[in-house]
Amino acid sequence: MIQKTMDLSLGKVKIQVGNKMISEEPIFFAGPCSVEDIDTMRKIAKELKELGVDVLRGGAFKPRTSPYDFQGLKEEGLEILKAIKQEFQMIISTEILDVRDLEKAKDVVDIIQIGSRNMYNYVLLEEAGKLGKPIILKRGFSATVNEWVSAAEYILNVGNDQVILCERGIRTFETTTRNTLDLNSVAYLKKNSRLPVIVDPSHGTGVRDLVKPMALAGVMAGADGLLIETHIDPDKASSDGHQTIDIKTLSEIMKNTNDIWGLR
Amino acid sequence: MIQKTMDLSLGKVKIQVGNKMISEEPIFFAGPCSVEDIDTMRKIAKELKELGVDVLRGGAFKPRTSPYDFQGLKEEGLEILKAIKQEFQMIISTEILDVRDLEKAKDVVDIIQIGSRNMYNYVLLEEAGKLGKPIILKRGFSATVNEWVSAAEYILNVGNDQVILCERGIRTFETTTRNTLDLNSVAYLKKNSRLPVIVDPSHGTGVRDLVKPMALAGVMAGADGLLIETHIDPDKASSDGHQTIDIKTLSEIMKNTNDIWGLR
Amino acid sequence: MIQKTMDLSLGKVKIQVGNKMISEEPIFFAGPCSVEDIDTMRKIAKELKELGVDVLRGGAFKPRTSPYDFQGLKEEGLEILKAIKQEFQMIISTEILDVRDLEKAKDVVDIIQIGSRNMYNYVLLEEAGKLGKPIILKRGFSATVNEWVSAAEYILNVGNDQVILCERGIRTFETTTRNTLDLNSVAYLKKNSRLPVIVDPSHGTGVRDLVKPMALAGVMAGADGLLIETHIDPDKASSDGHQTIDIKTLSEIMKNTNDIWGLR
Amino acid sequence: MIQKTMDLSLGKVKIQVGNKMISEEPIFFAGPCSVEDIDTMRKIAKELKELGVDVLRGGAFKPRTSPYDFQGLKEEGLEILKAIKQEFQMIISTEILDVRDLEKAKDVVDIIQIGSRNMYNYVLLEEAGKLGKPIILKRGFSATVNEWVSAAEYILNVGNDQVILCERGIRTFETTTRNTLDLNSVAYLKKNSRLPVIVDPSHGTGVRDLVKPMALAGVMAGADGLLIETHIDPDKASSDGHQTIDIKTLSEIMKNTNDIWGLR
Repeated sequence: MIQKTMDLSLGKVKIQVGNKMISEEPIFFAGPCSVEDIDTMRKIAKELKELGVDVLRGGAFKPRTSPYDFQGLKEEGLEILKAIKQEFQMIISTEILDVRDLEKAKDVVDIIQIGSRNMYNYVLLEEAGKLGKPIILKRGFSATVNEWVSAAEYILNVGNDQVILCERGIRTFETTTRNTLDLNSVAYLKKNSRLPVIVDPSHGTGVRDLVKPMALAGVMAGADGLLIETHIDPDKASSDGHQTIDIKTLSEIMKNTNDIWGLR
Repeated sequence: MIQKTMDLSLGKVKIQVGNKMISEEPIFFAGPCSVEDIDTMRKIAKELKELGVDVLRGGAFKPRTSPYDFQGLKEEGLEILKAIKQEFQMIISTEILDVRDLEKAKDVVDIIQIGSRNMYNYVLLEEAGKLGKPIILKRGFSATVNEWVSAAEYILNVGNDQVILCERGIRTFETTTRNTLDLNSVAYLKKNSRLPVIVDPSHGTGVRDLVKPMALAGVMAGADGLLIETHIDPDKASSDGHQTIDIKTLSEIMKNTNDIWGLR
Repeated sequence: MIQKTMDLSLGKVKIQVGNKMISEEPIFFAGPCSVEDIDTMRKIAKELKELGVDVLRGGAFKPRTSPYDFQGLKEEGLEILKAIKQEFQMIISTEILDVRDLEKAKDVVDIIQIGSRNMYNYVLLEEAGKLGKPIILKRGFSATVNEWVSAAEYILNVGNDQVILCERGIRTFETTTRNTLDLNSVAYLKKNSRLPVIVDPSHGTGVRDLVKPMALAGVMAGADGLLIETHIDPDKASSDGHQTIDIKTLSEIMKNTNDIWGLR
Repeated sequence: MIQKTMDLSLGKVKIQVGNKMISEEPIFFAGPCSVEDIDTMRKIAKELKELGVDVLRGGAFKPRTSPYDFQGLKEEGLEILKAIKQEFQMIISTEILDVRDLEKAKDVVDIIQIGSRNMYNYVLLEEAGKLGKPIILKRGFSATVNEWVSAAEYILNVGNDQVILCERGIRTFETTTRNTLDLNSVAYLKKNSRLPVIVDPSHGTGVRDLVKPMALAGVMAGADGLLIETHIDPDKASSDGHQTIDIKTLSEIMKNTNDIWGLR
């Protein structure tokens, strides 16, 4: 049924990000929740580049529960990402919500992110897949692992196997943390699927203090990389500041990840 | 925040369906899960029309977990619905998944359905809302009531208040039934929101035998109407046959609904 | 496996409560969450008796999340229930938490309640079952229907088939209501189990305003009776006042229940 | 409210297990799900002792969903544990279900386990607490973190602060794994509570292959130790074989745990 993602006899899918091959070395995706103004983005990009972050991520289009909440800088955000990309020569990832935005984003975005609320938006998955670029497919916050890999299958089925699964926490009865980061899924997928898996401990916990231990737990569960909301001044982030870490904490996470990488 | 849907001082929203005003009389939406071939649809439409069903519903575009499952008759399904509409003079409702299909569907579809998987697809909500037609907004199967009414607010916010909320069951730990029909939400919304609420006991239970008692329970919880998967021969339905009822059971539900309507 | 509760070929279990046979007529269990002082209990009992309530219920022993919250009047509560029982000749039901309390409660309590937190306390189920009295077995708030009937089987297995299942809401992601009243389970059990089922809309919603519609929804789903937290002055109840209704509302629920009973 | 467990100004609770102080070094609890016959237990104990496992655990009394499933060797199981304890000089932990069994178990059991189904059994918590021995308090499979620490507070409130919290997975919509191991809770509790926390990856996943990665993920999230179902021949275990690992895998987990312990 979902053989293109789960039939291990076809071999693990290989995805190159910059000069790294995923699963051979840890991959780090970092940046602010929303794209900030150009000056702030420049400062963030400079720091992340120096640390060795592989991919700069930031949301231009933000899906929000309420229509009255900040919806991202939209096209202006894409322009900012484009300027940063040129200045810092970084790989850029951003979320796309609308099939009609794929064309506009094509030249700027190297890795397209499909967000948790759009995991079941099969129309978007197929159209994004057709661009042929790598796609970060976030798990729907109430999706079973089976539904998640079936969603990936929609992308593989249009001829694009460059799909990076991203565990970002599921919705449970627990309210101490924003979501329940399901690392069982990471351990399971590393053994049973062909696709790489990364972990987003920012949404997975929703609590700044818990990002570091859960990032490292994710690595030990088998993750190929981490996607972490990071800002030079988390308290001033335009969204999700409460779960955003600073550069120093990211640096510690990256160091510890490298230390434990070989001990899995 | 979500004042257009929840501020009761603005008065209850009035929605006319054919010659009925919602909430003054029970409204019945019925038909097969997927649009069937034209002959079968004709037989179904004839029976439903005779029973007094208000709206014929059937899926032309079907969102499915796997890309290899039947995805609906698509454009051909719209053509069949168009033919049925003309022949039987019935009000037609169908689900739209892709903003690019809204234009095609405009002439056929009287009431647009937004399915459970697309409740967070705000782009689709806004574009569908702009057509100015009534919209059935199904609850996301893991959406809180607050997220659901916030999604409705996206539609009201583009100037269309003709939104019918549809409770269709939520995802819980229980597996005896496909979903857990959350009638608490119906009772809550009838007291606290401006919008009408209908109940879909077919998806809400996933079990044919439970459709009738749960339809009636829904009415008693305060529902303004029912949306029920119905077929002349449920075992031959092209999808969801296990939760589809026959014409006779629908007839009983409609009779009992009328009997208890005044006892709430 | 769980044949004593689920094998319909053995026939439905018959349970007599006072002069009513359960499932032939609706049965009403009502009273305060916690046993109140004797004067208040007398006033409550008088009103409930006049309304035709079948069983007076009230908690002497209260399981509470925190050890510092009010734990019930305990033995003193049992004494109060005993006095009320003699004065008003009412059938009494109360929850037992500790196997060592069964002996003390034996003379006062006609129907033993096993609470939601103790549904998996098989030691208590068996010891309570051995008294031979009817038992209200509340569903564990996170128990599957299968686990619930398996718990009942522990009681039937010690030779006592007088078990009344009570749906009281399950824990889900939704927080608008305290629990999600799962009426699917009621409809399912009425078709598939040998035991009667009642509904507790007080815990099932946690919201006073929703008790009436959800009580009636429960009846329509197939319930054999209702268990409702009721007080002469709900705002003064020693616990759970926010979900407790007054005598007038109970009276309306009882009247409407009788009206719709034959329309199921 | 729950100050005895959560007020960090009182200092972290210190618990000695054998010659180790919890949280200074990793603590390992291992053994079969159910106590096996004496010969098998001898073989298991010998291996575990040699590996350096700190506590031998095994269930004498087993709470089971169905009354017809194997309920453990009960008193005979206690006798076997007693013999093993004397022969191998190991620290013994087993679950107690019934307050009336505490007396019998007192001489054999060094660390009492309260199982997931009994986390809300406050009577049992208090009586077990009064023995003054360390208690492993497993998280109720649907308990919030707040309810869990409140349950611990019942034990601290009778004067016993020797409580070891054990995360063992929660019940969610996901069915790929038996439970969803909630390591967020571990990271949270290590920062916010006074009590040590251990992780049970056996129940937390229910899948033998996932025990090792999730054990190590648990350590990285901050766990003070691991409780793992282990058997010399997992396929022959009298219960839970599908999630039981062999001695070799346990040995690897212990080695890796020691390697990463200092990298947190």
